[in-house]
Amino acid sequence: MIVAMWCIDVLARCCGKTECGAIGSGLCVFARYRITDSFLYRYSLNGYPYKFHHGDWFGGKSVGLVILNIKDLVVHVYVTHLHAEYCREKDDYLPHRLLQAWELGQFIRHTGKTADVTVLGGDLNMHPCDLGNRLLQCYTGMKDSFIETEKFEGCEDGCTLLSQNCFASVSDPQSFPSGIRIDYVLYKGSRGFPVKCEHLTTTSGTAPGKNIPYSDHEAVCATLSVQKEKAAFSEVRHGEETDPQLVDILNEARAELKIGIHGAERVRYSSGRMAILGLILLLLEVVIAIIPLVTTTAENSFPKVSFYILGMVAFAVALLAGILYVFHTIEVKMLQGTEDQMRNAIQALQERLSR
Amino acid sequence: MIVAMWCIDVLARCCGKTECGAIGSGLCVFARYRITDSFLYRYSLNGYPYKFHHGDWFGGKSVGLVILNIKDLVVHVYVTHLHAEYCREKDDYLPHRLLQAWELGQFIRHTGKTADVTVLGGDLNMHPCDLGNRLLQCYTGMKDSFIETEKFEGCEDGCTLLSQNCFASVSDPQSFPSGIRIDYVLYKGSRGFPVKCEHLTTTSGTAPGKNIPYSDHEAVCATLSVQKEKAAFSEVRHGEETDPQLVDILNEARAELKIGIHGAERVRYSSGRMAILGLILLLLEVVIAIIPLVTTTAENSFPKVSFYILGMVAFAVALLAGILYVFHTIEVKMLQGTEDQMRNAIQALQERLSR
Repeated sequence: MIVAMWCIDVLARCCGKTECGAIGSGLCVFARYRITDSFLYRYSLNGYPYKFHHGDWFGGKSVGLVILNIKDLVVHVYVTHLHAEYCREKDDYLPHRLLQAWELGQFIRHTGKTADVTVLGGDLNMHPCDLGNRLLQCYTGMKDSFIETEKFEGCEDGCTLLSQNCFASVSDPQSFPSGIRIDYVLYKGSRGFPVKCEHLTTTSGTAPGKNIPYSDHEAVCATLSVQKEKAAFSEVRHGEETDPQLVDILNEARAELKIGIHGAERVRYSSGRMAILGLILLLLEVVIAIIPLVTTTAENSFPKVSFYILGMVAFAVALLAGILYVFHTIEVKMLQGTEDQMRNAIQALQERLSR
Repeated sequence: MIVAMWCIDVLARCCGKTECGAIGSGLCVFARYRITDSFLYRYSLNGYPYKFHHGDWFGGKSVGLVILNIKDLVVHVYVTHLHAEYCREKDDYLPHRLLQAWELGQFIRHTGKTADVTVLGGDLNMHPCDLGNRLLQCYTGMKDSFIETEKFEGCEDGCTLLSQNCFASVSDPQSFPSGIRIDYVLYKGSRGFPVKCEHLTTTSGTAPGKNIPYSDHEAVCATLSVQKEKAAFSEVRHGEETDPQLVDILNEARAELKIGIHGAERVRYSSGRMAILGLILLLLEVVIAIIPLVTTTAENSFPKVSFYILGMVAFAVALLAGILYVFHTIEVKMLQGTEDQMRNAIQALQERLSR
């Protein structure tokens, strides 16, 4: 059996096959086999709407699941695109991407229990050793096709984001002269259906007959083979295997999320303070406007032009800061909720390991 | 085995055990048995942030899943709270609630495949015969404990929202003098583990020793019994049963969603037009302000007070209408995406039925 995944980033962004966010999450699956069912999960956090120049928020990043029935095999194919990393040294979006990696892992674990074969393809926007990547792979038990493949053809180190690509921008080209590997095909089999990666290729350079590449990322194509072992149906209730490493990874992730919570709380506090200041200023303006009406003073001594400029500024500040306050409250809650979930997961893991 | 669900609405809203939305989704599960795993899914749409007086948007409505392991039985317990219905005659939130019912059904179907027993408890904010309720029950195959119970004690017709409740407001008390049943415990077993509802009770009236009720809704308590049939493990891969009624219900839901999409598109169009008008006005103001600087005219003939008031209004209109435009674009996309999913589900169902 062959499953091929193409992660064409620019194309996917443009065609927007899944209706999500203001622009569309840009996830798209073309399948040779019939899609029997599908499901979409939108990540709880995905950047900031006021960072127009990054624009990830407007995409409504999600993970899509399509279920294929291939010769009596139930194959779950997941596609996703996580929040971009714009600056590796000061990555403001690290907590959001970590939350997305956690939710992605949760989604795969909870929806993929009856799958014979599970495949995840996507632009994870994470380097191979990044915390979110380790968390995802350790939590779901999925393998990286680049590491596991028997044969590889393509860019050096399997890189998919190359500095010479005219559409791409590598945040730190000095440290990564050959590019970065941020697009992945992960997979796992099940008891009775072991999977191996026979062949992995990436595109490299321009499209045939053109002087521009297909996309800002190189495409990844994996050929997976599934063996059918005997007595496959005898025990579908496979107990989850627990990797002791996961506890450490989860603790590392919790520490990272706590930094994110602290940052979000700081911005929320500033927004709240600004909103209150704006409201006080507006209130003052109202009082100044009312005074001449209730007193005998003929004219308000406050210059009218400054008065209205101040009113405009106070109104805009109160409104925008209020919206920001609500937005960052949601951010804090989501990060806190994820950290709680991780703490619970650690407890459950430790119990399972101690048995 | 006994599973008891309490849907205490006011209490749940206040304690906010799940971190979601700006206030918290208010979902809470107290379990006698150990919770082995959990997962949360936030609905894509949930009212409007500018409808402060309704406030559902700020709650970040979700469905929570907790997995219990009770004497080797895998029990999935789902809790949820859908968007409220404020006016039955002109229910602006019907498309949102329908989308939530669909997503709830999808979530239960995709995460509940390995469950021996599935229980859903929650304030669905839908009457027993409402489209969303029929869709949910038909799509998931879950049964209504009030209909199925062998013994019932509580309010007339199982009502949980009573007009005499001092915290509650029944939108149309004339049509529903005894109240409405909008809080449910739904359940289903699996092959090998049939479930029946032995006893269902609701609270009625005030809390003991107090002159106020526990909550704005009456609590529902269901006693479910699970039988363990022989050869339960032999065939976990149960094929989904297809109810032919589901096609009609889905078509009805699609029609309702299309009305919702039309409404959302109308509001989006108005918002977009208003944003453009605001921007044009702002641009005009800028031109008026620049003219005296570049020409020899000594003074701008436009009165300064009106000029700044106009600037303030134009700025506020452009900003707010722009935010609304983005919000309603997301709404349109989400509704369209759900309608697409339903169309695909109908196709898959019809294929399965024709076989």
